[in-house]
Amino acid sequence: MTDFTSFQAYTELKNLASDPVDLTKKGVFTAKRLEEFALSACGLKLFYGGQRVDKAVMDQLYALAEEAHVAEKMHEMQTGEVINHIEGFESENRRVLHTAMRDFFDHRIEEEAAHDATDLAYQELEKLKGFLDAIEKDKYTDMIQVGIGGSELGPKAIYMALKAFSKKGRRVHFVSNVDPDDVSAVLQEVDVKKTLVVIVSKSGGTLETRTNEELVRERLRKEGVDPKTHMVAVTGKGSPMDNPEMYRESFYMWDYVGGRYSATSMVGCVALAFALGMEKVLDYLRGASAMDKHALEAPLKQNLPLTLALLGIWNRNFLGHHTCAVIPYSQAMVRFSAHLQQLDMESNGKRIDKNGKAVDFSTGPIIWGEPGTNGQHSFYQLIHQGTSEVPVEFMCFRETQFVEDLLFKGTTSQEKLLSNVFAQSIGLATGKQSENPNKHFPGNRPNSLLMAKKCDPYTVGLLLSLYEHKVAFQGFIWNVNSFDQEGVQLGKVLANQIIDLFAASRGETEEKADFPLGQYLIGQIESL
Amino acid sequence: MTDFTSFQAYTELKNLASDPVDLTKKGVFTAKRLEEFALSACGLKLFYGGQRVDKAVMDQLYALAEEAHVAEKMHEMQTGEVINHIEGFESENRRVLHTAMRDFFDHRIEEEAAHDATDLAYQELEKLKGFLDAIEKDKYTDMIQVGIGGSELGPKAIYMALKAFSKKGRRVHFVSNVDPDDVSAVLQEVDVKKTLVVIVSKSGGTLETRTNEELVRERLRKEGVDPKTHMVAVTGKGSPMDNPEMYRESFYMWDYVGGRYSATSMVGCVALAFALGMEKVLDYLRGASAMDKHALEAPLKQNLPLTLALLGIWNRNFLGHHTCAVIPYSQAMVRFSAHLQQLDMESNGKRIDKNGKAVDFSTGPIIWGEPGTNGQHSFYQLIHQGTSEVPVEFMCFRETQFVEDLLFKGTTSQEKLLSNVFAQSIGLATGKQSENPNKHFPGNRPNSLLMAKKCDPYTVGLLLSLYEHKVAFQGFIWNVNSFDQEGVQLGKVLANQIIDLFAASRGETEEKADFPLGQYLIGQIESL
Repeated sequence: MTDFTSFQAYTELKNLASDPVDLTKKGVFTAKRLEEFALSACGLKLFYGGQRVDKAVMDQLYALAEEAHVAEKMHEMQTGEVINHIEGFESENRRVLHTAMRDFFDHRIEEEAAHDATDLAYQELEKLKGFLDAIEKDKYTDMIQVGIGGSELGPKAIYMALKAFSKKGRRVHFVSNVDPDDVSAVLQEVDVKKTLVVIVSKSGGTLETRTNEELVRERLRKEGVDPKTHMVAVTGKGSPMDNPEMYRESFYMWDYVGGRYSATSMVGCVALAFALGMEKVLDYLRGASAMDKHALEAPLKQNLPLTLALLGIWNRNFLGHHTCAVIPYSQAMVRFSAHLQQLDMESNGKRIDKNGKAVDFSTGPIIWGEPGTNGQHSFYQLIHQGTSEVPVEFMCFRETQFVEDLLFKGTTSQEKLLSNVFAQSIGLATGKQSENPNKHFPGNRPNSLLMAKKCDPYTVGLLLSLYEHKVAFQGFIWNVNSFDQEGVQLGKVLANQIIDLFAASRGETEEKADFPLGQYLIGQIESL
Repeated sequence: MTDFTSFQAYTELKNLASDPVDLTKKGVFTAKRLEEFALSACGLKLFYGGQRVDKAVMDQLYALAEEAHVAEKMHEMQTGEVINHIEGFESENRRVLHTAMRDFFDHRIEEEAAHDATDLAYQELEKLKGFLDAIEKDKYTDMIQVGIGGSELGPKAIYMALKAFSKKGRRVHFVSNVDPDDVSAVLQEVDVKKTLVVIVSKSGGTLETRTNEELVRERLRKEGVDPKTHMVAVTGKGSPMDNPEMYRESFYMWDYVGGRYSATSMVGCVALAFALGMEKVLDYLRGASAMDKHALEAPLKQNLPLTLALLGIWNRNFLGHHTCAVIPYSQAMVRFSAHLQQLDMESNGKRIDKNGKAVDFSTGPIIWGEPGTNGQHSFYQLIHQGTSEVPVEFMCFRETQFVEDLLFKGTTSQEKLLSNVFAQSIGLATGKQSENPNKHFPGNRPNSLLMAKKCDPYTVGLLLSLYEHKVAFQGFIWNVNSFDQEGVQLGKVLANQIIDLFAASRGETEEKADFPLGQYLIGQIESL
């Protein structure tokens, strides 16, 4: 495969980037421009006239996608080729089949690997349905999901986004941090007798998760509750956690679904189905699958996740921006940016390509964000007037989730919310001249605006999948492996050495590693 | 005042930055280095050997501080000079006296403006004590604080940090977003008959806050509760909200305390005192005040917030980093980074200096972060192996808040948590060589480690004030006004125009602004 910087379109784009469109010039940023740079798919509308692109730039971006064979690579991914791989070096060598977790609807993928994965996923979904029917009589009110990384961020983001649709009297809590105060705070909020606990760990060996599981088991025992009837596992088949002696039920996950891509597998669906019921979970999966088909089949220039990916690459590699803020104007989407932070940064925060060669260009940016309008009263000062430019991806919904809204001073709250996101999108692009330098807004701050009708299960499924494919397309173009995470290993190795030092100082282990740095820091904190 | 780039130390630092210390070299990153680059103050310990500094760099950084007269400026701020000001242009022209909100303890500032502000603040504190005593009999269980920006981020971060110390049966909720789903979700969780509502708005005119107040009043009336007995105002004296007909009590705030600096004023203390009681609030204020005195009086080289500020400037202006991640290894500190995001980015995300001249250097970075260990399973891949380097400020505590902890495999959870933060701090600095390029860690990722004994009220006060002064010191050195936020105005103006368009389309207003961009976007969302 040709290197990213060797593509013909790369050179063209480098030239075009020296003089991008000036959105602050009179007559440039108009309704006509918004209409020209817009794309609709699956009920979503994307307006990207606020990006510093023109037709020539977009043509070259799509040419770049063509040169990188993104359509073929998306096909390889969704049909189950082994794409989690580094050529010539030891690597995970796995298929990447999160799309198979929801391929239950229209024109299913027929290739064997993907088809088999979908069959297995469907069995789990049926198992889940049976399980929920069986526990109906037990009158559980709460569920605690214990998991970390992809076993918490995606599932929690989705649950928060859709909590408004919960069955009456059902709540889900998440425990992730090895900080014991995390689990203590959650246990304070529930009646453990009416609580189901889901432990999520693919390997069955995640340190934080198994430690928290012990703390929960201890509490259940103290309160006279049999852990076996209250605890459920989501884990790999045959892992130490796949054990009917310890869990009432085990739901399976597979090595071809990475943690950060697992929100539509049992990792996300067990808690969601407990809260919302199976029907709404199916809507959510239907949304995700609809976007999968769009990502696979839509021509490049109509492809929504690809277009988002290309705009990101324009900002990152050609305009030189280091970060990207994702700002949903919706309180329900409060944790969506945190999920995307993992999804994007763990996938594309890479320094070598798929041939093991160090890249000589920027890969994944820093993803961050908080919901609007809150952010307006926080970090927007810097976005409007700071010295680092921040590309922004806005998101908004026509309707509220709860019906409760009020006409106050002539408009509803939802209309005020929409007015704010529209205003920010416009103001960042156009800026504003002033004689007073402190009231001068330079403008040309790149941003896009994504609209949907309502933050409902189907739409949240669409959005989740949209961003999964944005990230995958960027990885295809940069030719990095978006599906491994070797960068988290060093910390684990060193942490285990320091844990051994702590254990040794308690006399719990015999040998003491030779690690003066760790020993020094332990001494320092113990002297406080 | 000399420009930042004209300081003599600036030139020296530019030269030093061309060849910063290589932390990955054998024998460089040692316990001896950690000991050399460390600082203790007020019970906190800072280890910054993980930053790419040596003695020469630190000497020049302190020389830079000297040239910028930071000690004099800190003195001006704390004694009540008018420093919120742009020379030669219309500006806010205010004193900056958040430190006066807690100057109740040792050797009080004697200058009149600051002294008067402290007296007024103390009156409010006494009023709060009386109020809490008076409501004791009413058996309130919940408080909802309605406010946005500094009226939510700081207070919520502090409340979350200290929630573990709450009185039994007392909870606080925050509503900020104009999204009506925000208030609806909170109202679902409380019995409004047992709920106090605090409305926070200095001007009494914040759109989001007053809109949410209306939604809450509506609900109270529906449930037959008299809003007047359940609602409290925190507002400017004489504002439209300073009205005993509408609120059971009004607590005052002043224009010399900016929103993002208001967490130790009534903006933060009403909710905190409801939850924790007055005594713990005094501990919190005592901690903040102790750090104020340290910031004011400690010699430059022993000054903790100044040292943090200088390390930030080294990373930003000399090593060229765009962001800074703040990562507390403590679940209680879950919203602290969000508070710092506002505090720092709204204060120093500026493009002009205090003479109204556009700066030719980088000002405030993008601040972001999530608690550890969670982040390890999310964005650490990029921090270790991505192409953008991210300076990290770690924070950790010796003890847990809840006593519940468990020996699992020879160590407690708290020990595992500490092992992880130590490991990350070391691993980011040293990196790790490998034959497999995917398992190679380049190292030299700058980071500091801040240690404290326990996340208790006094310590949280210290930390809050530490960061307030870090930000102030950076502003002093860059010579920007860290106390205004003109950059949020454009969005407000445009949002109001679009709100008018919505109102006009309902026939609620007669005139319709000529704003085709706004009209176009309204048409687009309505067609969904």
